[in-house]
Amino acid sequence: MDDKRYIDLIKSTNIADYSDIKGIIIIKPYGYSIWNNIKIIFDKILIKNKYNNLYFPLLISKKLFQLEYKTLNIIPKECAIVTHSRFKINNNKLIVDKKSKLNEELIIRPTSETVIWSTLKRWIQSYRDLPKLINQWCNVIRLEMRNKFFIRNSEFLWQEGHSIHSSKKEALLEIKKVKKMYKKILKNYLCIPFITGYKTFKETFLGAKFTYSFETITKEKGKSIQLATIHYLSNNFSKVYNVKYTNIMGKRVCTWGTSWGISTRLIGAIIMIHNDKKGLILPPKIAPIQIIILPLIDNYKIKRIIIYLKDILKKSNITFEIDDNFNITPGKKFYKYDNMGIPIKLIIGINEIRNNTVELIRRDTFQKYYLYINNNIYIKILKILNSIQKRIYIFAKKRMRTKTYFVKSFKSFIKKINRNCGFYATYWYSNSKNELTIQKLTQYTIRCIIKKSNKKHKCFFSNKYTNTKIILGKSY
Amino acid sequence: MDDKRYIDLIKSTNIADYSDIKGIIIIKPYGYSIWNNIKIIFDKILIKNKYNNLYFPLLISKKLFQLEYKTLNIIPKECAIVTHSRFKINNNKLIVDKKSKLNEELIIRPTSETVIWSTLKRWIQSYRDLPKLINQWCNVIRLEMRNKFFIRNSEFLWQEGHSIHSSKKEALLEIKKVKKMYKKILKNYLCIPFITGYKTFKETFLGAKFTYSFETITKEKGKSIQLATIHYLSNNFSKVYNVKYTNIMGKRVCTWGTSWGISTRLIGAIIMIHNDKKGLILPPKIAPIQIIILPLIDNYKIKRIIIYLKDILKKSNITFEIDDNFNITPGKKFYKYDNMGIPIKLIIGINEIRNNTVELIRRDTFQKYYLYINNNIYIKILKILNSIQKRIYIFAKKRMRTKTYFVKSFKSFIKKINRNCGFYATYWYSNSKNELTIQKLTQYTIRCIIKKSNKKHKCFFSNKYTNTKIILGKSY
Repeated sequence: MDDKRYIDLIKSTNIADYSDIKGIIIIKPYGYSIWNNIKIIFDKILIKNKYNNLYFPLLISKKLFQLEYKTLNIIPKECAIVTHSRFKINNNKLIVDKKSKLNEELIIRPTSETVIWSTLKRWIQSYRDLPKLINQWCNVIRLEMRNKFFIRNSEFLWQEGHSIHSSKKEALLEIKKVKKMYKKILKNYLCIPFITGYKTFKETFLGAKFTYSFETITKEKGKSIQLATIHYLSNNFSKVYNVKYTNIMGKRVCTWGTSWGISTRLIGAIIMIHNDKKGLILPPKIAPIQIIILPLIDNYKIKRIIIYLKDILKKSNITFEIDDNFNITPGKKFYKYDNMGIPIKLIIGINEIRNNTVELIRRDTFQKYYLYINNNIYIKILKILNSIQKRIYIFAKKRMRTKTYFVKSFKSFIKKINRNCGFYATYWYSNSKNELTIQKLTQYTIRCIIKKSNKKHKCFFSNKYTNTKIILGKSY
Repeated sequence: MDDKRYIDLIKSTNIADYSDIKGIIIIKPYGYSIWNNIKIIFDKILIKNKYNNLYFPLLISKKLFQLEYKTLNIIPKECAIVTHSRFKINNNKLIVDKKSKLNEELIIRPTSETVIWSTLKRWIQSYRDLPKLINQWCNVIRLEMRNKFFIRNSEFLWQEGHSIHSSKKEALLEIKKVKKMYKKILKNYLCIPFITGYKTFKETFLGAKFTYSFETITKEKGKSIQLATIHYLSNNFSKVYNVKYTNIMGKRVCTWGTSWGISTRLIGAIIMIHNDKKGLILPPKIAPIQIIILPLIDNYKIKRIIIYLKDILKKSNITFEIDDNFNITPGKKFYKYDNMGIPIKLIIGINEIRNNTVELIRRDTFQKYYLYINNNIYIKILKILNSIQKRIYIFAKKRMRTKTYFVKSFKSFIKKINRNCGFYATYWYSNSKNELTIQKLTQYTIRCIIKKSNKKHKCFFSNKYTNTKIILGKSY
């Protein structure tokens, strides 16, 4: 999907719109509803895994970042800095009132490790207070001033999970748990296939010992999208903010942390993965509307059928809408709802009334079914929704596989990427300078380190022997 | 409840905590869960009333406020202004990098009329696009730098509803609908009694034709709290942003708007209204935990009973927790859960096993019940939860009434407020200068205009004849 098609699709389906500031978008009801469905599903997963939702402030004082700079050498980048609090009028124009300068600058959270760890000291005293498993759903700002709907925006909505443990071992076990949580939402609900692995040193979250990431590629272009990241913070933030606890032996020792997030970027991934020429194909489990009911004529028999269907669908927790505006032709309606990616169309016309059936068309294959209207109709519908859910995942997974190549040398890598964009697996001898060179020459970056093999292989770039296998990809 | 008691209660129940910035708080899991329950309930009410959730940006460009200044003479106050995007290091210290100055300042939303109406022009063309009924759940910033948990904070979470209509009549009808929505959540769910009426000109939302507000008073102190406001925007923002539509006659005409919100301030209101010496008394319908189960001894019979109860409570959608930590005395547990305001304690000891009963103690009256353990136990429990819900509303309402006084003259007003803080009803001849004088002399403000009577009465302050009746109150 080229950029124009991507933007057109987002605008024509009322998923999002531009704001008047570059890099910042408005999420419209159809798009927000997709995000809300993701939120409801993942929130249940979080609660099952004993996480508590809470809310930390949007604004963080500079002195905390100063501490992080001192200990971990982190300098916040592309951040929104609040410096004043009032306007005054000058020549009929609003200008910042210099007198309202804040004593200390405030930074809009780009993420919340800083504010959370600086608070934890007050909340954690003894081993009985651990683990702390917390999560927040909120907005964050990274002033990128680039404008790729959902993929690169200055503001996005996300969940950020934070866990604090009494031992390294426990923190690493928690990371395994979080991996499972993300696998579940990505595969079972969003139908997005992915590869996973560790980020290189250069791409690791500042303050983390390692970053584990989930990556996928888009349908046509084969471009890389980072779906989720999990950071192992080790005892780094525990050191910065002196977050210690008294263990069973009565000794004061440090704590160990993890943090991880998924964001509205997932909406972009869904759009770029699940689509065809006619528009979106939304996974039924997160589709705002699972079924659109389309009566072709306006009479009392059809009205009776619709009342009957409504009742059954409601009871089965299937979301639906009815379009009974007869001023618009069925053709135009099909076009609209196919574009929106609604998984199932239910059509009722004269033939259907005669046969006491409805015509069902599934969005992914356009296969038609004629279902008898009776109390059990929901069983067949649920079956088809499930079948769509499974099929689009398998379809996307196969495609990702066909777009994943293996290369042995930089020469063949260069040759192949000119023909095909996708994931490139190869062996790599870690070297940050070479990593940058590759990026400059090819625009490809190391998406992640997928495994360490037992055998040593030649690095595709430096020819040095290594056991590290990586995936390269071209991101937005 | 004095300030110290209010803060102690919030901290000891883990509802909220201070952040390191004055005026900004952290909402902890127990407090966030109360907010989340309010959100779930009100979101259902919104959807029933055909509102769509969406998400507008956090940051608003100065040029939009410039437009509002020009047309409506609005100057944003106490706002967080973003001016830079980068830090640099100087003498080992983070300082704002002057080179990163933004071309145009960005303001963190204090509310979203500005950004919404500036966008609507693109979304509304014809009468078919109206009404637009939209809502967002988000954070807003008003840099007050005052620190009264939930009541006065720089950041709060809220819902802001916005409706756009094709006629004045329709917009005014919508306001009636919203009044009903707020009445429902405040009375039926939060058990908060209130008075309602119009704000004076001085207190009306800038850009609104009128502001309608819901006000209550706290339990002991009788101080006023504004619970919710509804603004009738008339065609003011339609004029600023040129939001017009083509009517059925093909003519371009202006649109009419409303906006309204409730925020995390409601958590503060709940705490200050529903409490006694032992702590909070949460309304069952928004309590994070409705029942705490307290086994007094540790044996297999009790465990069996608990498994049985868990199953029944789950099926009846009653939220509960079990405290089976036998290292803590029952006395301490009672103290803790009473303080947290959990509506019902279920206690099981030796006597209870013998009689196959549980002891139930309700939080509001401490009345005891002995319930037989059987499949129908949930019916009795639901009945008691309902009874608590009703009783605490009636209790609060009666109290509000006893703290509502009528005065005829300023002299008697002064005399009475020295003895009793509360709501003061009186007649008032509108005059902004006098309004300010009263505030300076007494710290009381006009909370709202409650009605216009047919008969003329003397104004309590100016002695001029008027038919306007108002309520005065002392707010935080």
